[in-house]
Amino acid sequence: MKRKNGFLGKDILSVDQFSKEDLTFLFRKTTLMKKIVEAGKKSKMLQGKIMTVLFYEPSSRTFGSFISAMQRLGGGIIPLQGMTYSSVAKGETLEDTIRTFECYSDIIVIRHPEVGSAKKAALVSTVPIINAGDGVGEHPTQALLDLFTILSKFKKIDGLKVAFVGDLLNGRTVHSLSKLLAKMGKVEFFFVAPKILRMPQEIKDQLKNRVSIIEAEKLDEVIKKVNVLYITRVQKERFSDLSIYENIKNFYIITKKLMEKARKDLILMHPLPRVGEISTEVDNDSRAVYLTEQMRNGLYVRMALLAATLGKIK
Amino acid sequence: MKRKNGFLGKDILSVDQFSKEDLTFLFRKTTLMKKIVEAGKKSKMLQGKIMTVLFYEPSSRTFGSFISAMQRLGGGIIPLQGMTYSSVAKGETLEDTIRTFECYSDIIVIRHPEVGSAKKAALVSTVPIINAGDGVGEHPTQALLDLFTILSKFKKIDGLKVAFVGDLLNGRTVHSLSKLLAKMGKVEFFFVAPKILRMPQEIKDQLKNRVSIIEAEKLDEVIKKVNVLYITRVQKERFSDLSIYENIKNFYIITKKLMEKARKDLILMHPLPRVGEISTEVDNDSRAVYLTEQMRNGLYVRMALLAATLGKIK
Amino acid sequence: MKRKNGFLGKDILSVDQFSKEDLTFLFRKTTLMKKIVEAGKKSKMLQGKIMTVLFYEPSSRTFGSFISAMQRLGGGIIPLQGMTYSSVAKGETLEDTIRTFECYSDIIVIRHPEVGSAKKAALVSTVPIINAGDGVGEHPTQALLDLFTILSKFKKIDGLKVAFVGDLLNGRTVHSLSKLLAKMGKVEFFFVAPKILRMPQEIKDQLKNRVSIIEAEKLDEVIKKVNVLYITRVQKERFSDLSIYENIKNFYIITKKLMEKARKDLILMHPLPRVGEISTEVDNDSRAVYLTEQMRNGLYVRMALLAATLGKIK
Repeated sequence: MKRKNGFLGKDILSVDQFSKEDLTFLFRKTTLMKKIVEAGKKSKMLQGKIMTVLFYEPSSRTFGSFISAMQRLGGGIIPLQGMTYSSVAKGETLEDTIRTFECYSDIIVIRHPEVGSAKKAALVSTVPIINAGDGVGEHPTQALLDLFTILSKFKKIDGLKVAFVGDLLNGRTVHSLSKLLAKMGKVEFFFVAPKILRMPQEIKDQLKNRVSIIEAEKLDEVIKKVNVLYITRVQKERFSDLSIYENIKNFYIITKKLMEKARKDLILMHPLPRVGEISTEVDNDSRAVYLTEQMRNGLYVRMALLAATLGKIK
Repeated sequence: MKRKNGFLGKDILSVDQFSKEDLTFLFRKTTLMKKIVEAGKKSKMLQGKIMTVLFYEPSSRTFGSFISAMQRLGGGIIPLQGMTYSSVAKGETLEDTIRTFECYSDIIVIRHPEVGSAKKAALVSTVPIINAGDGVGEHPTQALLDLFTILSKFKKIDGLKVAFVGDLLNGRTVHSLSKLLAKMGKVEFFFVAPKILRMPQEIKDQLKNRVSIIEAEKLDEVIKKVNVLYITRVQKERFSDLSIYENIKNFYIITKKLMEKARKDLILMHPLPRVGEISTEVDNDSRAVYLTEQMRNGLYVRMALLAATLGKIK
Repeated sequence: MKRKNGFLGKDILSVDQFSKEDLTFLFRKTTLMKKIVEAGKKSKMLQGKIMTVLFYEPSSRTFGSFISAMQRLGGGIIPLQGMTYSSVAKGETLEDTIRTFECYSDIIVIRHPEVGSAKKAALVSTVPIINAGDGVGEHPTQALLDLFTILSKFKKIDGLKVAFVGDLLNGRTVHSLSKLLAKMGKVEFFFVAPKILRMPQEIKDQLKNRVSIIEAEKLDEVIKKVNVLYITRVQKERFSDLSIYENIKNFYIITKKLMEKARKDLILMHPLPRVGEISTEVDNDSRAVYLTEQMRNGLYVRMALLAATLGKIK
């Protein structure tokens, strides 16, 4: 059965919007994009198309990834970092800014510190909006690239053991990815976090009918069991009682020594930037994918998403 | 008779430089550009050409519009926002900066807070300079897109009733556009402004032999008569006596209720950004073109201008 | 004999890495690039390739030159000025940033205030790194464009009389260029500088076996003899005793009057930006090349370098 492009002309706002079929379609196209880039092929798929990249807060990684994706497919860019200093300073609403750039471009990628801003943009826009992070809200393309990375490695999700480690209370990345994984199959989750930074009950409620969840405060037993170890940062600023932070912080740092306990078929992931959560001595471990596959998949997924949204793949 | 491209290799500094024939030529090409974009065609008209966009003050709208225009025609860009923090900080003169970028590109678009800066640039440049706003001086491409918007709607200028509303003293947009309109035909102007922000005598002197001018402080009678209602912002900061501002400010806000008095064939324009001068409830009125035709025409006019200046259309 | 492309896949970190054969190869390609641009030809040599331009300090000239070079050859760009405000602010290491952008692009051009940063980047990168200035370290593409400018004018280096003027202690440009010139032939150097800003002994030691060196504090005798007069800025801030600065500063300003003493076949060079070291009255002297050939050669050399590094010329 040929799958339909469910992305054509659609906004990409939240992982909640994707069906399993959508994801299967997108990842088949992502694999295609990977081949194009790896073969050094020139693609003109999006020639003549223009993408506005409207960033209200800095993020060179996501910014660069989208910009590369568009140009790898022959498209053009309106690169706008530091929007805060421009029209915003003149008092213009987000809605007016969006209606401006829908006139100049075929798709708008937006990053904004306020939750719901991408949705607000989508409500007035006639061109597709891609949410590239709306504060503590969502960052769906991060979750997509993470899921693609896991699927590429393990082929199937059923029975997969996935540990999320660090600040699971505030991490939009782990919330989104856990929901996507649960959509794809019967995954076993290990949520490893300090007590005050545990996965929100609301997310667990959404997941629990479909998956098994084990919660822990320490990593040393969990690391022996899991296929995927997904690390996020525990920020000092989250703790009102710093003695608690000092007590626990080292439990969440991935070292070479700790990696010795892990499975041979593990993959170690991180959304980056990292600030010490994974020791650099681990970077050359073949199981570490955060600076290699995971990063490159960000490019491929975004290429596929742009092409699908703009109707250039079927 | 085939019209000549009077733009080839020329600087675009001021609306004063355009003859009626120039404008007719340019707008014929603008219509062509509109068709290219609306049909989703790929154009390679400016392939191999590079445009420097040299912005000494932020303006994401004009910046994005030029950048899109160049790439829609296959050209490349050197996007330089925030010039103030670069060479300027090192003490370089504008002239040296211009002579640098004329070596790297085929055309330079400049925005600078000082009146006359674009002309200064043109004096030393061997490549065409486009003035994208020189402080309270001129912003000729804004006037061109405004005129094109009016012409597209009404086909001819003779007998057209055009109201300019708001700060007519400081608004470079209304000065330029009124001069262009007067060039094209026998227009009837209505200048609606608070006493302290009336159209300068100098501009009126330039216009008066060719057009009729009626001045008013209030909009409610004028709005019933006009074909074009062009709104600009009345800035609180212009008033030394704030009680005057408080008294009059509401006369210049366009509401749904006020629009009921307007003609069916009216078009409502605004150069943007707006900060309350037009209520958002008016946005969906089919006569409101500031977020639709007017904005898109900015792209088309700039595409035509780039192609004409670089000699790629005849 | 056909020369080999010694640049393929290589980092460009320091002028020390180039052999005479490398330079001959590169400049033959530079001449080719010059012809492409001057003929207004469209090149697709680097179509499908992406260059990241990672600037941790502002430099619109070098930034614009690389960006133009890449697009003149059909390639795409990830333009990142103001990196300091992005990932760096989040505490990410330079190494992680580099490993990110090697995933999104085929080559990375970096400018960073710290000496050795480009080398640090090259150590972790799988794609070529081009050093576009690492603080008081090196800026090899500046030296390359300077050498190409001299060679284009005089064809051979043997017997050429070259004066460097200004701050020879801190000027990375003059250090690099003097080393390159010494590689190419038997040049006669004149180092003209205030006592406290003389060429470092270390550089002179590297040069002295191959070239002749004359040092002077004043320019008026030297200017009569030389073929190349290369001016750099003497910064007030370098002097703890300002009376010394006041005494000497005028000796290093190039005026029309001073140029009357110079040879007819002289070329007057400056890396820019200038802040008064060369009077603007000299700009139209046909011997002044700093705003013309020297600047344009920056574009051509960088085009050749990108094409050679990415393996698109043989």
